[in-house]
Amino acid sequence: MNFCSNCGSPALKNVIPIGDNRHRLVCGRCGTIHYHNPKIITGCLPLWQDKVLLCKRAIEPRQGYWNIPAGFLELGETVEAGAMREVWEEAEARVSIIGVHTIFTFTKFHHIYIQFLGNLINGEYGVGVESLETRLFAEAEIPWDEIAFESSHFALRKFFEDQKNGRQQVHLGAI
Amino acid sequence: MNFCSNCGSPALKNVIPIGDNRHRLVCGRCGTIHYHNPKIITGCLPLWQDKVLLCKRAIEPRQGYWNIPAGFLELGETVEAGAMREVWEEAEARVSIIGVHTIFTFTKFHHIYIQFLGNLINGEYGVGVESLETRLFAEAEIPWDEIAFESSHFALRKFFEDQKNGRQQVHLGAI
Repeated sequence: MNFCSNCGSPALKNVIPIGDNRHRLVCGRCGTIHYHNPKIITGCLPLWQDKVLLCKRAIEPRQGYWNIPAGFLELGETVEAGAMREVWEEAEARVSIIGVHTIFTFTKFHHIYIQFLGNLINGEYGVGVESLETRLFAEAEIPWDEIAFESSHFALRKFFEDQKNGRQQVHLGAI
Repeated sequence: MNFCSNCGSPALKNVIPIGDNRHRLVCGRCGTIHYHNPKIITGCLPLWQDKVLLCKRAIEPRQGYWNIPAGFLELGETVEAGAMREVWEEAEARVSIIGVHTIFTFTKFHHIYIQFLGNLINGEYGVGVESLETRLFAEAEIPWDEIAFESSHFALRKFFEDQKNGRQQVHLGAI
């Protein structure tokens, strides 16, 4: 941010506003406080029989690596609707949401991943424009060294652990 | 947003960028795409014996109404750390997080509430600067008509329902 988005002034200062306890960018001309907050990435791991559906990324970052369908939550949609939209966009698949699976914080990049589990409807899927390839993987087939993000690695590990233990719970992770 | 925060130009246009499928504010001078995404409000319902700790808000919106301690997630903190910080700021209390309780989307205001359950440590609490009063409530004492936000009303209802049913699960809500 180089200019105040309210008045266009370049006179931005990094100060602690009165009544606050953190540094914020404040406009020296109009006084607008510019808050910056983490963004939500919402996704869903589609399940079919004993397999999970992953997408090979067609776009950066991590092009060519496998990922759980996910993307930025948009204005005006619920977290679960956003997850279902991403599954459609990346894997041309429909899911029925089972529940929340992980909430994973990337503290450095200011991203919060909320990942659901969902049942893949009719076992049908395709390849969305943001994917090079999509595929169902059994646990033994997961390309662990080619998973795009730590959040997805975490979600996959926890999913198979939970399966072995016959339980479903929400896992909190961070990096 | 009246001016581009990158170059200061007022030439912002609401268009669908190439490769996108949604309208975004795009700068007609430097081409910066200004994405706007929902923000996370993180909070925790502190539990002590058969009671829950609520705070009467000292600030707008909904000044004078009772609420679960919560606030905007800040850059660089995990969702659960943010929830514990808010409990401290609003109720001068420490909690140990039990787990995620609700994820509630305010689609109109672009806020996503992530609410945890936590055990109030030693049953100790005070009154933070953003609160007029704090108090432990048994279910029969909850001032249902004076709860600040629908997200908190939802979280409280679901908590007492779960208690009756002897279970703990994550509830998705939206308005």
